[in-house]
Amino acid sequence: MGRIGNVHYKNLKRISNVTIKYIADIVATDEWPAKYSEAEKIVTDYHEILNDPEVQAVMICTPTDLHPEMTIAAAKAGKDIFCEKPVGFNDKDIMEAFETVKKCNVKFEVGFNRRFDKNFKRIVDHRENGDIGDEQILKITSRDPEPPSMDYVKRSGGIFMDMTIHDFDMARFITDAEVDQVYVAGNVMVDPKIGEAGDIDTAIITLQFKNGMMGVIDNSRQAVYGYDQRIELFGSKGMSKADNVLDSTTTFSGKDDVSADKPTFFFLQRYIDAYKTELESFLDAVRGNHEVECSFEDGIKAIRLAQAAKKSLNSGKPEKVNSVQNFEEV
Amino acid sequence: MGRIGNVHYKNLKRISNVTIKYIADIVATDEWPAKYSEAEKIVTDYHEILNDPEVQAVMICTPTDLHPEMTIAAAKAGKDIFCEKPVGFNDKDIMEAFETVKKCNVKFEVGFNRRFDKNFKRIVDHRENGDIGDEQILKITSRDPEPPSMDYVKRSGGIFMDMTIHDFDMARFITDAEVDQVYVAGNVMVDPKIGEAGDIDTAIITLQFKNGMMGVIDNSRQAVYGYDQRIELFGSKGMSKADNVLDSTTTFSGKDDVSADKPTFFFLQRYIDAYKTELESFLDAVRGNHEVECSFEDGIKAIRLAQAAKKSLNSGKPEKVNSVQNFEEV
Amino acid sequence: MGRIGNVHYKNLKRISNVTIKYIADIVATDEWPAKYSEAEKIVTDYHEILNDPEVQAVMICTPTDLHPEMTIAAAKAGKDIFCEKPVGFNDKDIMEAFETVKKCNVKFEVGFNRRFDKNFKRIVDHRENGDIGDEQILKITSRDPEPPSMDYVKRSGGIFMDMTIHDFDMARFITDAEVDQVYVAGNVMVDPKIGEAGDIDTAIITLQFKNGMMGVIDNSRQAVYGYDQRIELFGSKGMSKADNVLDSTTTFSGKDDVSADKPTFFFLQRYIDAYKTELESFLDAVRGNHEVECSFEDGIKAIRLAQAAKKSLNSGKPEKVNSVQNFEEV
Amino acid sequence: MGRIGNVHYKNLKRISNVTIKYIADIVATDEWPAKYSEAEKIVTDYHEILNDPEVQAVMICTPTDLHPEMTIAAAKAGKDIFCEKPVGFNDKDIMEAFETVKKCNVKFEVGFNRRFDKNFKRIVDHRENGDIGDEQILKITSRDPEPPSMDYVKRSGGIFMDMTIHDFDMARFITDAEVDQVYVAGNVMVDPKIGEAGDIDTAIITLQFKNGMMGVIDNSRQAVYGYDQRIELFGSKGMSKADNVLDSTTTFSGKDDVSADKPTFFFLQRYIDAYKTELESFLDAVRGNHEVECSFEDGIKAIRLAQAAKKSLNSGKPEKVNSVQNFEEV
Repeated sequence: MGRIGNVHYKNLKRISNVTIKYIADIVATDEWPAKYSEAEKIVTDYHEILNDPEVQAVMICTPTDLHPEMTIAAAKAGKDIFCEKPVGFNDKDIMEAFETVKKCNVKFEVGFNRRFDKNFKRIVDHRENGDIGDEQILKITSRDPEPPSMDYVKRSGGIFMDMTIHDFDMARFITDAEVDQVYVAGNVMVDPKIGEAGDIDTAIITLQFKNGMMGVIDNSRQAVYGYDQRIELFGSKGMSKADNVLDSTTTFSGKDDVSADKPTFFFLQRYIDAYKTELESFLDAVRGNHEVECSFEDGIKAIRLAQAAKKSLNSGKPEKVNSVQNFEEV
Repeated sequence: MGRIGNVHYKNLKRISNVTIKYIADIVATDEWPAKYSEAEKIVTDYHEILNDPEVQAVMICTPTDLHPEMTIAAAKAGKDIFCEKPVGFNDKDIMEAFETVKKCNVKFEVGFNRRFDKNFKRIVDHRENGDIGDEQILKITSRDPEPPSMDYVKRSGGIFMDMTIHDFDMARFITDAEVDQVYVAGNVMVDPKIGEAGDIDTAIITLQFKNGMMGVIDNSRQAVYGYDQRIELFGSKGMSKADNVLDSTTTFSGKDDVSADKPTFFFLQRYIDAYKTELESFLDAVRGNHEVECSFEDGIKAIRLAQAAKKSLNSGKPEKVNSVQNFEEV
Repeated sequence: MGRIGNVHYKNLKRISNVTIKYIADIVATDEWPAKYSEAEKIVTDYHEILNDPEVQAVMICTPTDLHPEMTIAAAKAGKDIFCEKPVGFNDKDIMEAFETVKKCNVKFEVGFNRRFDKNFKRIVDHRENGDIGDEQILKITSRDPEPPSMDYVKRSGGIFMDMTIHDFDMARFITDAEVDQVYVAGNVMVDPKIGEAGDIDTAIITLQFKNGMMGVIDNSRQAVYGYDQRIELFGSKGMSKADNVLDSTTTFSGKDDVSADKPTFFFLQRYIDAYKTELESFLDAVRGNHEVECSFEDGIKAIRLAQAAKKSLNSGKPEKVNSVQNFEEV
Repeated sequence: MGRIGNVHYKNLKRISNVTIKYIADIVATDEWPAKYSEAEKIVTDYHEILNDPEVQAVMICTPTDLHPEMTIAAAKAGKDIFCEKPVGFNDKDIMEAFETVKKCNVKFEVGFNRRFDKNFKRIVDHRENGDIGDEQILKITSRDPEPPSMDYVKRSGGIFMDMTIHDFDMARFITDAEVDQVYVAGNVMVDPKIGEAGDIDTAIITLQFKNGMMGVIDNSRQAVYGYDQRIELFGSKGMSKADNVLDSTTTFSGKDDVSADKPTFFFLQRYIDAYKTELESFLDAVRGNHEVECSFEDGIKAIRLAQAAKKSLNSGKPEKVNSVQNFEEV
């Protein structure tokens, strides 16, 4: 039960008409039943969950390299699946998981929680409402308040796979358009150790879409003023812009300046409601009330963008986003 | 189970280490156990709750005229009490309840939820931190999005007792000062029917504090743009100002103007987190971790202000806030 | 040539098709022709100006007690008049000046510069456009950045006549409605010396209008964060609100907070454009292109409000605004 | 006397201690002396100005292709020179003008007016004050409210030379750093006619600086909500951000939304004060009070950036900004 597992556990407790039958973790101890009292049973082997015919859906919140095999096992057991991002690291494993999910005909949702942020959804509302007109420019500012531990950096898959992947998904979600080409200007500006680990911590990523529009994402692993999460979509009829969520609406006017609170600290604060909405949406999809809002294809396409970004960083040139042959629409 | 009862029920479900043993309502039906499945037992006679020695605390969310008698019964049964505002309508009953609570030595908290709004708390932080310096001017804007039903208006005790009472409590909470004198300019500007019922719907209330500072509250029963809840505290060293909470941080810039979302609709939206924090604080007080954050005295003082306001409206002159003889500090 | 005289002099230089023929000041010295090089002639006796048939209009920027006699002399000489506020201190003198201006049929404009502030004008636009609906509540925040010298305080005529008079004029201008009754809560909170001089420095003034709407002005002689000039007009269809003008639109997000620039320091900064627009409007009125935008009646009505405010402060009760018998519309 | 010539003429009228001796324009007519009454003499041949020994400085506001020859003539006549941007189109001519100015030892300022915008200057203040820490990311949003005429487009030198050149100068001014490499994603999204004329109207330009930091400029020839001019500078200690200047600070809260005024329409409105400050600064430099604030080198470097941008657009790859060999510091 890592950070995100605990987020989902707390939200499940707040949602009606759902029972937490199991929590599986190989490091679960005797203290866990008391700690996770809402769960009916704590197990160390996740197959125990898959063997229980009463279980309808599972949530996979493990390290990324385990995502494909657990997805495959769950799909074969006929369980609907919510899987944290990214869906995997290895292309072959990912595609096998994808095929298995399709063949077993189970539901599968990727945990791109920002799709459920009410502020970003308002931009989509404006687009769908025709307020934006023809889309022309997308801008995403995405900066973390502080870099992760070096341990995390090393097993994260790199900034594009770990952090920018959310922005890549947002780029597709906000615009409803597909990216054709990516160019990355990146550097190590926050912490030399990140560079020593073979990664970067600061980047500006230009997106050229198939429909001719353009976009830019800027990333930093450290914004000292907090989690900086802004998006703007500009078009022929106007611009919609989502600003940061601040800790409060209260300001102080003093003899030196007028000061406001900083943006909420990090994703657990900023997206606290989005995580709950995401979960409710998934449960509704499991019940058949609507399609999953973030599909396996979405998960793979975000990875394709991350791969192209890495390639561009290495080549110093713009790079095409490789098509995924199994998807008709790509 | 009225509107506020349901708010508290939902929040109790989200709080750990608390058991909802009973819900009592004289109109409870056979459907209630399913509807309120978290409650162990649904009863129609609240005395059943008071007779259960396992019950540690009760929440009174009934019509105002029942507050004193239920408070007295609960206090005598040794239960800690959370009571919705106002603590009562009738002075004699209120003071009897107050005395009983004191004598029985139970905890008692009044439901002034706005004390738990994080935005308003930031103003208090600034004051306590010395940023404001000597307090000079307090301004409270408090406007509802739409008037209540005429039925509600008639049994509400009037605008001061029903609506402004929150602002009176805020005036004391934000400033940590006591009001000496009140002057009201009031009128019927929203709906003539409110006037026919003997009430007003629009008011500007001037407060003169014992420490020399001044304040103003403006009220309206109808702000078409939503729940308008702003406070500013001005002093010798600066001003702290809490603005409205908007539905989102997203704006749209079009050919005519730049538009933002409206303030959140009403108290259930604006104070959704405050209600939960309020409850957690009360439960912590029950457990003896700290004093109740909004005492019986606070409840009575807000009523004294409402009474003085009504007197001023009738006399057309400023009126003193009557002292409550039982309180040493008044 | 005091502070405001210099403001008008500089603006006249920026306006086309106007000639500064004279500057009159009893303390003018030999250095003045060089200092005020745009003026054709510097004189110490203002009658010299009035005797020049080429002079079409005069601007009176002297101490208030001289306004009536200079107005009378200028009117008798057939000059159009721009006179700084207030139009005088003494009722008898003011009314004599008013009658003379009417009899001599010259144009007369009072220098209520805030009527020409583009931000406040936008509120009037919204009202005239029907956006506000029926007017219900007016709020004016008006705080100076620092108190004037004690010398100035003593000859200012008191806070209502010197400072609030602008707000009283705004109350009428913004609403296009007349005030019936005034109640003042006032105190000395900034500087005890102001109290010793028989004045106050902090006030909350409730306005009850003849049309039933209500308003409130809050004043302070010292807002450490700069000139605080905000107005909001609330009605049945919505609210229009003019916020402060800040020194820049630039913010800084640091590890402690997000800070913005303070409001522009004082009236010379905030109303720099309004003063020029005011002058252009007066010159246009002199040329017969439109009526003066702020009449002698407006000047007298603001004084009536100041007088009622002073009476209320002394009586501790709301006071009626005395009618001015010579005005048909009052 | 084109648009910008008139801007400078009006500002000169507002500045003390300067005499407009001449206006030269080959299309000047008999009406001009009345129209430009502040100018002592209207001529059609600019050499007449250069031959007048009383003339100390000249302002060149002609079409760009005339800038170098007029600069050379004015330098040889010993006049200090203010020249509108860009300093020329043709490299050879520009460098000849540059060498002549150096040899003749006259002052030369390029008209990058945005350097004098108080909002952008505040960002520089924050940088110079150390608030930003190490610079990491620069973002410039620069969108015109409407495209120019097709005539203008055709003789403009293209979007980078005409419009982005201001942003390139800002990139250097705000950061005090030099750009090493440029990558452009550009397209025709506003008007196909612009494409037919061989130009683009929408672009995202990535800047990689010599010091390792990165930047992005986004341009559009048409933002329907007005002139969109925002800059943010992000670094290790914080971010400074200049927002748009709106037509007023007034908002309207209605039943649908909260609406604010749009950004000021275009450069004549947004930079009205900056143009005057620019001129005052140039005149002060002419008087020897300080160095010119925007040198010939600055003018050339902005052109180098525009050239690299054009090259990148054509090649589809990032391109190095060519060094200018004559500048020691490059």
